[in-house]
Amino acid sequence: MRPFITLTTDFGEGSPYVAEMKGVILSLAPEARLIDVTHSVPPQHIRQGALVLAQTTVRFPTDSIHVAVVDPGVGTSRRIVYAEIAGRHYVAPDNGLLGLLAQRHAASKVIELSNRSFWGASVSSTFHGRDIMAPVAAQLSRGADPADLGPPLSALAPLDWPQPAWEAERGQGEVVAIDGFGNLITNLEQGKLAELLAAWGSTGVVHVSCAGRTIVGLSRTYGDAAAGECIALVGSNDRLEIAVVGGNARQLLGATLGTAVIVKVRGEPPPQK
Amino acid sequence: MRPFITLTTDFGEGSPYVAEMKGVILSLAPEARLIDVTHSVPPQHIRQGALVLAQTTVRFPTDSIHVAVVDPGVGTSRRIVYAEIAGRHYVAPDNGLLGLLAQRHAASKVIELSNRSFWGASVSSTFHGRDIMAPVAAQLSRGADPADLGPPLSALAPLDWPQPAWEAERGQGEVVAIDGFGNLITNLEQGKLAELLAAWGSTGVVHVSCAGRTIVGLSRTYGDAAAGECIALVGSNDRLEIAVVGGNARQLLGATLGTAVIVKVRGEPPPQK
Amino acid sequence: MRPFITLTTDFGEGSPYVAEMKGVILSLAPEARLIDVTHSVPPQHIRQGALVLAQTTVRFPTDSIHVAVVDPGVGTSRRIVYAEIAGRHYVAPDNGLLGLLAQRHAASKVIELSNRSFWGASVSSTFHGRDIMAPVAAQLSRGADPADLGPPLSALAPLDWPQPAWEAERGQGEVVAIDGFGNLITNLEQGKLAELLAAWGSTGVVHVSCAGRTIVGLSRTYGDAAAGECIALVGSNDRLEIAVVGGNARQLLGATLGTAVIVKVRGEPPPQK
Repeated sequence: MRPFITLTTDFGEGSPYVAEMKGVILSLAPEARLIDVTHSVPPQHIRQGALVLAQTTVRFPTDSIHVAVVDPGVGTSRRIVYAEIAGRHYVAPDNGLLGLLAQRHAASKVIELSNRSFWGASVSSTFHGRDIMAPVAAQLSRGADPADLGPPLSALAPLDWPQPAWEAERGQGEVVAIDGFGNLITNLEQGKLAELLAAWGSTGVVHVSCAGRTIVGLSRTYGDAAAGECIALVGSNDRLEIAVVGGNARQLLGATLGTAVIVKVRGEPPPQK
Repeated sequence: MRPFITLTTDFGEGSPYVAEMKGVILSLAPEARLIDVTHSVPPQHIRQGALVLAQTTVRFPTDSIHVAVVDPGVGTSRRIVYAEIAGRHYVAPDNGLLGLLAQRHAASKVIELSNRSFWGASVSSTFHGRDIMAPVAAQLSRGADPADLGPPLSALAPLDWPQPAWEAERGQGEVVAIDGFGNLITNLEQGKLAELLAAWGSTGVVHVSCAGRTIVGLSRTYGDAAAGECIALVGSNDRLEIAVVGGNARQLLGATLGTAVIVKVRGEPPPQK
Repeated sequence: MRPFITLTTDFGEGSPYVAEMKGVILSLAPEARLIDVTHSVPPQHIRQGALVLAQTTVRFPTDSIHVAVVDPGVGTSRRIVYAEIAGRHYVAPDNGLLGLLAQRHAASKVIELSNRSFWGASVSSTFHGRDIMAPVAAQLSRGADPADLGPPLSALAPLDWPQPAWEAERGQGEVVAIDGFGNLITNLEQGKLAELLAAWGSTGVVHVSCAGRTIVGLSRTYGDAAAGECIALVGSNDRLEIAVVGGNARQLLGATLGTAVIVKVRGEPPPQK
């Protein structure tokens, strides 16, 4: 059975561009099995694309081939790469899109797609997803050797990612994703939050501030408070998030991508000082 | 060939959460065949989820496994169940989501998913679709015995469904779904409507009132009247619906889910009294 | 391996109607392989449906079966057809939906779907995609002979398509599609544009006017100018399009489907007169 080929783009759900890519892949590899990750990355939003790739592709069988097209620089000098990260296979423009993945597990192989014999017969200057990445992915799924795709590169282009600022009793981050329920997902990760809390022993209480509101304490899940209440919790991908029980935090708080989120830990009663 | 696994959620089309579920299923059952029913159930709208499940899943091969995640109570005490209804297989939170299906054909088997050996290795408190339902569905598709998933339950949780009020010459219902064309689909079903009409013999004429308008007579199909005209007809799932020829009834009438719809039958000329 | 069945509709992404069609197809042909082209054709917009079919279906393996449902006349006297165009297989209402495809390569076979033995067991008057086209496509994928579906027709219904007006130094067309990036795609095709330019030798410069703006010269790709700049270029399907670098031309120009676009070629300096 052939490996899965997943597709992640900013073309929009139902975009004919996605269908063109699928047609190209299936013409070259009719036995390929395609899975849509998402086509709802906001247009040209590399950071959002990087986040969704880091969140989703690690759930798939390791031999899957993940094609990602968020490519504002299509046709310019930006490179297109094949990369192996944590044993997984990626085909994407080298513009930071694989940056979050590569922060966690360094890419073990990066190859520049320059061997035109793996590309489509005619290559436009505006749609390399269809004309280069799709044909390459199709041929990889049929067993092409990545080493034949082009020369190795020493590293991937870095991602411009908002790093949170962690201090002794405080973390400052921002909203980095908003899901379909309006939950505000931050760049404040569970691991760091746990460290912050651990310093307080059993008496520390998290205070989360966002868009003029302060939420005291962490909830365990969405239904853990009264309807309409604004809560903070660690979400299913180990990031601090802000939600409204039975409601929509984005709407209620008027938050957007980039809205600041501050976490403080206070003791109640305070620990020995 | 493995049975299909269908997915119905309120995550939104293109949600990364859907991709996470697919990755989990395909990692456990690489030969599974996934079909998206919809991810456009309005957030946490159990009733809309129940309706789409009743409308769509009965069209699939009977051995299909239908996973439905509209789960406002995730992580709370609500149960998750495996159910067999009319020979079909469902995995869903036990919150009424299977209620319309079970109204038509009582569930022949209901099992509470409590055997953790079928769950994912780590289970979050906010995403049981990924951590419990996806792994269970994957294993069912590979032949796991439902009886091993947990203890049998005597019944499914009921659905809070708006029952129409039928009288001798009148039915009162409401809009229960609005499709992509803006057609207003009601809870007034063909069977009851036919009974109402039958009482009038050949002289009864249906009058349908909604949002301040009254439509006289039923059309056979959408193109059966002049463009822009508001019509009533029995739609493809045997429910009374209101449409605008070449237009959008939702917009024209300003109707929403829950808008009242009244059907009266009047004789023209009146039958013998 | 069975041929692919692709689906193109105006039902909306995530519409339960799409799922109903899939269920019907997979019940009749469980080994079928379904691919969604798009369900985002604007409601009842035959022209947009024709465009997406012409753009996408030619990319798929030639034995694929393409089912297209943009069908404002469902249940009226319009016919439903099977057509072969450039060796590809289509099932669609005969309302112009296949018109752009047939303009490029005349249909080599057109058959009216009238043999009810290939239809579903019960046929509604409002959803022939589910009750006629899906069952027919399923059976075609299993090897049914198109000749058995009904009588041959001499031609497909024509499409009402806006033909551009080309003159010696000028072309007038309109916006015929807008993609998810807000790029304005026109009915002005590369071939005619090249002819216009060729008449000027190396000195001709294209001036593109749309919504009160005039763009001088053609860009090669989207990133070829400063951010925010409005550019014209030949897009990935060989049509003149108008874009905003890193932005959204639809929003910036306030353009919609049908907005006029004028191309003039001027010499700078002018050629010998």
